[in-house]
Amino acid sequence: MRGFGIVDGHVAWRDGEVAALLEPGESLNGLMARGPKAWAEARGRGEEALARGDGVALGEPALPFAVADYVDFYSSLRHATNMGRMFRPDGDPLLPNWRWLPIGYHGRSGTVVVSGTPVRRPHGQRREQDFGPTLRLDIELELGFVIGVPSRLGEPVPVDRALEHVFGAVLVNDWSARDLQAWEYQPLGPFLGKSFATSISAWVTPLDLLPRVPLEPQDPEPLDYLRSEPLGFDVPLEVELNGEVVSRTNARNLYWSVEQQVAHLTSNGASLRTGDLLATGTISGDEPGSFIELWRGERFLEDGEEVVLRGDGLGEVRGRVV
Amino acid sequence: MRGFGIVDGHVAWRDGEVAALLEPGESLNGLMARGPKAWAEARGRGEEALARGDGVALGEPALPFAVADYVDFYSSLRHATNMGRMFRPDGDPLLPNWRWLPIGYHGRSGTVVVSGTPVRRPHGQRREQDFGPTLRLDIELELGFVIGVPSRLGEPVPVDRALEHVFGAVLVNDWSARDLQAWEYQPLGPFLGKSFATSISAWVTPLDLLPRVPLEPQDPEPLDYLRSEPLGFDVPLEVELNGEVVSRTNARNLYWSVEQQVAHLTSNGASLRTGDLLATGTISGDEPGSFIELWRGERFLEDGEEVVLRGDGLGEVRGRVV
Repeated sequence: MRGFGIVDGHVAWRDGEVAALLEPGESLNGLMARGPKAWAEARGRGEEALARGDGVALGEPALPFAVADYVDFYSSLRHATNMGRMFRPDGDPLLPNWRWLPIGYHGRSGTVVVSGTPVRRPHGQRREQDFGPTLRLDIELELGFVIGVPSRLGEPVPVDRALEHVFGAVLVNDWSARDLQAWEYQPLGPFLGKSFATSISAWVTPLDLLPRVPLEPQDPEPLDYLRSEPLGFDVPLEVELNGEVVSRTNARNLYWSVEQQVAHLTSNGASLRTGDLLATGTISGDEPGSFIELWRGERFLEDGEEVVLRGDGLGEVRGRVV
Repeated sequence: MRGFGIVDGHVAWRDGEVAALLEPGESLNGLMARGPKAWAEARGRGEEALARGDGVALGEPALPFAVADYVDFYSSLRHATNMGRMFRPDGDPLLPNWRWLPIGYHGRSGTVVVSGTPVRRPHGQRREQDFGPTLRLDIELELGFVIGVPSRLGEPVPVDRALEHVFGAVLVNDWSARDLQAWEYQPLGPFLGKSFATSISAWVTPLDLLPRVPLEPQDPEPLDYLRSEPLGFDVPLEVELNGEVVSRTNARNLYWSVEQQVAHLTSNGASLRTGDLLATGTISGDEPGSFIELWRGERFLEDGEEVVLRGDGLGEVRGRVV
């Protein structure tokens, strides 16, 4: 894979198993803020250095950027339907707003960790009067889009200019404690069920390295501020558990596009900051991106198990439960 | 009032209408991270400087600290009951989890602004197929607790040590677009209905300057990790609209204490960072902390109207709708 990351306290460009050191820096944020011309120029310098043989080993994974706000969307129709069926068995699985706007919420940016960080099984209220370690520890396989160029408070970003703000993509594992989540999430959404850890890959892939593909047609037609030909990414994805692939899906299994997510997020005047992380939500197709969907709630993660998420052209996200 | 803030690019200690400059800095975060002894020492230097007459004018309000994660709780029983009645008229106003844990969610830290910043009326989906400026622009009167000393990932903060992490308190106006909120908030909680702006006061008051008072007894008794004598703050609060006080309440009208909020937030191993902002949620008593409760949905804010929130011993939060 190719992308930007951090090696030994330097911003670096990676190609395969080597990286070119570009400039000192504990995070990519400085480069990210400078915009598409600076990104292309830095990548060009990296490629030249590697062509000259000036590459170094990748070293230990390091968090590639300082996370500003972390937003988690809910943009896979199949996932939203599967979850709605489980969490609200008596109602319509898809709520009335779902097809009108990209549903999302803010997660905890302070607990976004890099691939390889062990994930401690969280304690919490599993239901009324029952506190202890979660018995339903799950994963969520997602893509995450990283904002480079900020936007101004009060100035929505039009859908057709959204990509000018996006520096690249990472893989995301949004670890979830389903028992804590089910007990706490109404009426204000997930909180401790997800805030203990969110793992991201150590390398940020420029979007032009990921093939785009039309998403399924949107019905009903989105409102004006969301209207654009919805394009996704044709990125095969897989979930590996203890060395064995247990689910395969693809980033094209999303309903809302990244352009629509950016336009929606800023439609009320909210600003983007360098380092904002916009995750897609779990990506489920014929095969799902979470264990609760895969195993229908009959099995979850045990201590010592390791999950690795992989995507073509992206890095990997690795985490072991401790 | 007395507290820490920023004057002309300096960390400053305020007492009344003058402030003592302490050290260069665009935010308080450096001081906040150093802990209670450093806070007391800085305050002592400030008081000495002011006693010597080395005070300066307060200048324009400046955001006093860089916000890390912003968490908004929902800790007023009266407010949660009032809102439950309005948003879920067919159900029990208080959900089953409410008395077992301090319900909360993450807000957008990138749009936390300082008192005096104009608030632009947000656009959004008011209901299905209806996009435009919000017709139900509201306020929420809250206290906000500012985390100074961070905690480590995976290590819950015990309820009886929570205050060691809290640098002080600010006043918060969590502006809310009720039509956007009602349409979008299920199942993942508030998002664009609140992410356009959250205003805070420019001065952070040390907690020992605010009188503490027992909160109403908690029933049922909280689980072990939340068990402590719940203490609140006896801080009279008021909402001023266009120069006239329209509601008076008190910070003692909360069910959950700040200690319990910190213990709950970290109970799953989530870490605290310097600059985390933990808001109480709207504080409603016999008189409410929001207009939707005060005017029962029959009137909201018009363009040009100005709201000022005040609290004894705290700064003020001022904002005009534009």
